[in-house]
Amino acid sequence: MSEKKKIYKPSPISGFPEWLPEVRMVEQQWLDHIRRVFESYGFASIETPAVEELNVIAAKGEDVDKEIYVIERLHKEEGDKEARLALHFDQTVPFARYVAQNFNDLVFPFKRYQMQKVWRGERPQAGRMREFYQCDIDVINPDNLPISFDGEIPAIIWEILSSLPGMEHEKIQIRVSNRKILIGLCDALRIDNIVEVTRIIDKLEKIGQEEVIKLIGNLGIPPQNTEIILKLASMSFRPSEAHGGIFEDPSTTLGMTIESVMMKEGLEELQAVMSALAHLPEGAVVADLSIVRGLDYYTGTVYETVFIDNPGYGSICSGGRYDDLAGSYINKHLPGVGISIGFSRLFDRLRNEGKLPVSRKCPTDVLVLPARDDEGASARAIAQTLRSNGLNVEIATAKKLQKQMGYAEKKGIPYVWFAEDGEVKNMESGKQSAADPESWRP
Amino acid sequence: MSEKKKIYKPSPISGFPEWLPEVRMVEQQWLDHIRRVFESYGFASIETPAVEELNVIAAKGEDVDKEIYVIERLHKEEGDKEARLALHFDQTVPFARYVAQNFNDLVFPFKRYQMQKVWRGERPQAGRMREFYQCDIDVINPDNLPISFDGEIPAIIWEILSSLPGMEHEKIQIRVSNRKILIGLCDALRIDNIVEVTRIIDKLEKIGQEEVIKLIGNLGIPPQNTEIILKLASMSFRPSEAHGGIFEDPSTTLGMTIESVMMKEGLEELQAVMSALAHLPEGAVVADLSIVRGLDYYTGTVYETVFIDNPGYGSICSGGRYDDLAGSYINKHLPGVGISIGFSRLFDRLRNEGKLPVSRKCPTDVLVLPARDDEGASARAIAQTLRSNGLNVEIATAKKLQKQMGYAEKKGIPYVWFAEDGEVKNMESGKQSAADPESWRP
Repeated sequence: MSEKKKIYKPSPISGFPEWLPEVRMVEQQWLDHIRRVFESYGFASIETPAVEELNVIAAKGEDVDKEIYVIERLHKEEGDKEARLALHFDQTVPFARYVAQNFNDLVFPFKRYQMQKVWRGERPQAGRMREFYQCDIDVINPDNLPISFDGEIPAIIWEILSSLPGMEHEKIQIRVSNRKILIGLCDALRIDNIVEVTRIIDKLEKIGQEEVIKLIGNLGIPPQNTEIILKLASMSFRPSEAHGGIFEDPSTTLGMTIESVMMKEGLEELQAVMSALAHLPEGAVVADLSIVRGLDYYTGTVYETVFIDNPGYGSICSGGRYDDLAGSYINKHLPGVGISIGFSRLFDRLRNEGKLPVSRKCPTDVLVLPARDDEGASARAIAQTLRSNGLNVEIATAKKLQKQMGYAEKKGIPYVWFAEDGEVKNMESGKQSAADPESWRP
Repeated sequence: MSEKKKIYKPSPISGFPEWLPEVRMVEQQWLDHIRRVFESYGFASIETPAVEELNVIAAKGEDVDKEIYVIERLHKEEGDKEARLALHFDQTVPFARYVAQNFNDLVFPFKRYQMQKVWRGERPQAGRMREFYQCDIDVINPDNLPISFDGEIPAIIWEILSSLPGMEHEKIQIRVSNRKILIGLCDALRIDNIVEVTRIIDKLEKIGQEEVIKLIGNLGIPPQNTEIILKLASMSFRPSEAHGGIFEDPSTTLGMTIESVMMKEGLEELQAVMSALAHLPEGAVVADLSIVRGLDYYTGTVYETVFIDNPGYGSICSGGRYDDLAGSYINKHLPGVGISIGFSRLFDRLRNEGKLPVSRKCPTDVLVLPARDDEGASARAIAQTLRSNGLNVEIATAKKLQKQMGYAEKKGIPYVWFAEDGEVKNMESGKQSAADPESWRP
């Protein structure tokens, strides 16, 4: 029977993480927790295929070509005329395509969540993932979406991030702004290169004020205007101050009155968002006008989320409001607001830092040791009763007591049940006592 | 603002199903239910990447080449020396690779479940899926795995299939056999072409007894031996009969005494499996010696599961015992037993037949209508209280009552809460009454 076999020793594939069962259990807790909070705000799940037509992805027109993985049958027949397929690199393109395709079957405002893996065909590189989970929510509505949804999203994200297992002691902060404010100001100051200014302001925390002054100056903008822009970007306030009015008229802070409908609109929207967040703990959310986000895609509210003690780590959860979700695929105007949790990157960070509550190697609550002479019948009956009470139960198969107990210990199973004696042992305390499977609870 | 846009109208991709939110909700219930039962028997989750090295998949040496999808970066750099990657076409190969790679970190017997999508690069064809969920469990142990695990698997599958939402009225049956019995018989009858005989017997239900006699005859096997084989294949018994002894000595049924250690072993194993299943309802499981399964991979117990009224549909859940899981990747002998639910195919069948309990379009339990003059503050407070009691809650954003109620109706939200009046309305019964968010339950 045992021929000499050819053995192909496999090794991990760079950028495609996978976990041992005990880590996977925590990953499942994270995914369950996020899903539960999303659903508690009424978001409905959708799941799209791993692939889209390459044309659909390309229609988005962004510079993502290098990150796209195409798929192909290993043995493609000649004359195969199917459209080329590619793995999705985010969940926004599939969501837009899904909405376009199912528009008439959806009820609006449509609140959806999506928790799937995405793929980025990057060069292999330490710490860079090529397959990872994203957890996204978006709300969209034809033509017009109320600002109240913008105020709901930071509350959802706070609820999630502050109570993920292992995240309880991390100091995080959600920073909110509204792009209309800066754009309105630039407009009023008759600055043409708004996009460039926005991109420079986006780097403020990273490169510092002096560098920003230099870069904006390079655009040919007069120093007094640069100064006003920087004054604006340095403004921030807390939810509790939203009704205090410090934002209603920024002319004192800026040292001049700005005539801009867009800026006014942005300020009002930002205030509306902040007043909806007054119930969150001190410091959970701030309005911070230096936040503009890199993507031109966003047209109003923008969000990012940082570790307060480690802002250089970058944003762990970002998003914002956009003017039109699916314009590339359908002739409908669909404004929306959404956010995306970079799940796998965050999870892996906490794993690396040893902060995840990794303990049990299996979901088993009780290991039942069979009685000596009934061929497992009593153990099966006990196990079935415990299961019907919601417990996870295994039956020991090792013959010797020592091996049975060793199995429970190594897997981290908290209780051992002796079918023969009708007793249960708490593995942590070592306490053993008589118990009835019908009524026993851990 | 509204330029003339180029619109790329997307269409569904053949073989890559996706569901509307209301169907997806039922799919999630199915996945949750299966996971809960798997875990209640102590199985631990693992999740492997979507891809494996093509060499790893090829090492399995099966004729699956045509079904493999390879992936490649759209813009591959010259001199890229990375191993070729392919999407996994099942969960057995990734599981075997995972075990080989993590052997020293796993505790045995290792019970794992895996519920992921797999991909098959088949030609597009009506009803043929190219992306679908499989839900697998396996137990493996170095060198020797107790037969009791073989008896546990049909109980798990019965518990799952008989209570999946929408499956309650389907008549299904799990059929169990043991390949050692037929192989031992052939051996005793000095039949050389055992594999061919097995494959013919596998088709018995499909092609009928006469055709089977003809095909076996064609192999040059004498008619009296064919008759004995067919007598064996027609034997079946129920769990309750396992101890009745009708199987302890098949010589009466076969009309002769067979001297085969292997056959005896197979009969004993099958009896052990069946006696572990005596608690299941009448007809849930039968031992049926015509079941042999097509794959040579299996060496003992084999399972298949059919719709009793529609056996031609094929098996919805199959598996069995194998001698060695990961021999291609590691120099360890790892016998195991496992089964796989063809999730998406089954789900889609029930969907097509209109049997799924599709109702709500979102998980929302309560829609809160804001009071007139507090900018949503009271609605947010009510919603937050209800959420902390485990309910899923949305706040209405439409201005007019009629639109608000229409939204609840169209999405299938069962309760509407009037913040202004402190009353809640049951949308089905139409009954409305005063309620306190702290204590109210649906």
